[in-house]
Amino acid sequence: KTYKITLLPGDGIGPEVVAESVKLLDVIAEKSDFSFEYTEALAGGAAIDARNDPMPQETIDACKASDAVLLGAVGGPKWDDLTGAMRPESGLLKIRKELAVFANLRPVAVPPSLAESSPLRPAAVIGVDLLTVRELTGGIYFGQPVGNDGNEAFNTMRYSVEEIERVARVAFEWARKRRNKVTSVDKANVLEVSRLWRDTVKALHKKEFSDVELDHMYIDNATMQMVINPRQFDVILTGNIFGDILSDTSATLGGSLGLLPSASLGKGTGLFEPVHGSAPDIAGQGKANPIAMILSTAMMLDDLGEGKAATAVRQGLEAALGHNLRTADLCHEGYTPASTSEMGELIRTE
Amino acid sequence: KTYKITLLPGDGIGPEVVAESVKLLDVIAEKSDFSFEYTEALAGGAAIDARNDPMPQETIDACKASDAVLLGAVGGPKWDDLTGAMRPESGLLKIRKELAVFANLRPVAVPPSLAESSPLRPAAVIGVDLLTVRELTGGIYFGQPVGNDGNEAFNTMRYSVEEIERVARVAFEWARKRRNKVTSVDKANVLEVSRLWRDTVKALHKKEFSDVELDHMYIDNATMQMVINPRQFDVILTGNIFGDILSDTSATLGGSLGLLPSASLGKGTGLFEPVHGSAPDIAGQGKANPIAMILSTAMMLDDLGEGKAATAVRQGLEAALGHNLRTADLCHEGYTPASTSEMGELIRTE
Ligand SMILES: CC(C)[C@H](C(=O)O)[C@@H](O)C(=O)O
Ligand SMILES: CC(C)[C@H](C(=O)O)[C@@H](O)C(=O)O
Repeated sequence: KTYKITLLPGDGIGPEVVAESVKLLDVIAEKSDFSFEYTEALAGGAAIDARNDPMPQETIDACKASDAVLLGAVGGPKWDDLTGAMRPESGLLKIRKELAVFANLRPVAVPPSLAESSPLRPAAVIGVDLLTVRELTGGIYFGQPVGNDGNEAFNTMRYSVEEIERVARVAFEWARKRRNKVTSVDKANVLEVSRLWRDTVKALHKKEFSDVELDHMYIDNATMQMVINPRQFDVILTGNIFGDILSDTSATLGGSLGLLPSASLGKGTGLFEPVHGSAPDIAGQGKANPIAMILSTAMMLDDLGEGKAATAVRQGLEAALGHNLRTADLCHEGYTPASTSEMGELIRTE
Repeated sequence: KTYKITLLPGDGIGPEVVAESVKLLDVIAEKSDFSFEYTEALAGGAAIDARNDPMPQETIDACKASDAVLLGAVGGPKWDDLTGAMRPESGLLKIRKELAVFANLRPVAVPPSLAESSPLRPAAVIGVDLLTVRELTGGIYFGQPVGNDGNEAFNTMRYSVEEIERVARVAFEWARKRRNKVTSVDKANVLEVSRLWRDTVKALHKKEFSDVELDHMYIDNATMQMVINPRQFDVILTGNIFGDILSDTSATLGGSLGLLPSASLGKGTGLFEPVHGSAPDIAGQGKANPIAMILSTAMMLDDLGEGKAATAVRQGLEAALGHNLRTADLCHEGYTPASTSEMGELIRTE
């Protein structure tokens, strides 16, 4: 069996980390009865430069025709003065929408080997193991109408019962495979759209998932709880912008955004990307941490049904972290600095 | 001179902490050439119970006729099933809007005496001294239209140049009195309303405040930076909901939400309230930390032009924290537990 993978290296450190994933997948293929066929396509700033479009139709077509998409990162100062549809980020939003990947999974786990790099006290973060399920194709990112006449501007945060139910279902199903608890995060004390969110989650819970523990939290309190007591969380279910904020807050627990993978899933092709951005300040210097991209690749393998290979990747990573090599973001006293490709190689060979 | 103060004790721990502020103000009045005249009025759940309205007109009138308003907290499980305009929180939003207090100031400082109760490593938080300036009467909290037909719901995040400029001005002016730096937080890579926010802040900076250092940050990154490196912030300028979230994140730095005061200012009467909520779980037990309310009272004194009295309050608080008494939220090994009123008394007598 050959899996068709579309690669969207994008901008900044994107190409460097995607390269490590490809090398890893090649090693996996050698040891397995399946293989990978790659198509590289343009996205983000790179696509603006080459095609004047952050998400060209040919890229969308390639993605839709493949079994999975691996995305590095998009954006950078070079394109910061562009506005609207011409921004690299618009390309990212477009491919999420085109692939209809409405559920964005962002797991965070803090093993003891990483707790020491956390800005939080180790006692508070060791053993954290949570999964944010962020709605990805609705909410204020896509709600109509929007406007900006130079004197007044507005966006619309909008959700339908159907949009809420389908992503809530994903969260409840993951909870059943984990510690059976969902925390739904909203701002129902202020926003109408959050009241619909909360009512819909409650009703679905009652009808189909009453075996799962469910609680509700306001977004302001949730970001605070994420710092004070992150171990209370198992699965977090939330909307697009609250998930954007809350998952970045959760990214601090392990001490580096360079550790956080994500999988964006819908009915068809999945999109797998690290949570970190393009990090233009360190691009091209071999300083990027490939772990988030590699963990995203493991999530891809899971989604393709190759759970054994995914587990092997995670074990290789854990073994690699047993060595004293670390990329710059995690390199404290007592560790030896490693480049992106040295770290990638260590993980591959473990 | 007699200052007219309207007291809105509200719900949960609100009455307990407001009581400590009143005792403190009485002590201050004894030693000064000014005094206070209090009017107590109903707000939040207490007002729903008594008047079927979380913000009765008589309360609004009393607030408008006074020099300052001290608010405890509103809300609680008793009123959680109410919706829309009947919620305690709607009363809070209403009084903010009626007083037109568009700038909500939320300072956070972490002296060494508090760093030990922080969930973050002391080295990361000692010396933090930041001020969030949150826009309070616009944005998605008040934007029209809104709707919820049970199948689809929406809110509108809306800002005008005028609304952005007036709150930005407050932030720049505070920066000049502090460390001369403003970080404006938005989501300009996705939202039209944030693009107007950023353009307006940039233009005002250029025109009137080019001596102040200005940078821009996306809200997702800002909550992360708040945990990783909070000392980088001096004044944070942001919109209503981003400010709600980010100020709660900043509240974790000192280890307890019970420490964070706020002042909501417009052109007329100011509203002074702790950032913490009504904490129904500990209400009526003498467990509440009065510090946030007392610091809010100090902000009120500053706003009334009684800076000397405000400084005396802050010094009393600092001296009180030199003793080993702490309310439950901060009471670790080596400390003696103190009740709300014991802590209040210690601060008053210092
Ligand atoms: C780059 C940006 C548009 C994006 C988002 O806000 O979704 C990013 O922050 C993310 O979380 O994937
Ligand atoms: C109670 C709630 C409506 C309020 C808000 O969201 O503004 C609170 O969280 C705050 O920050 O003052």
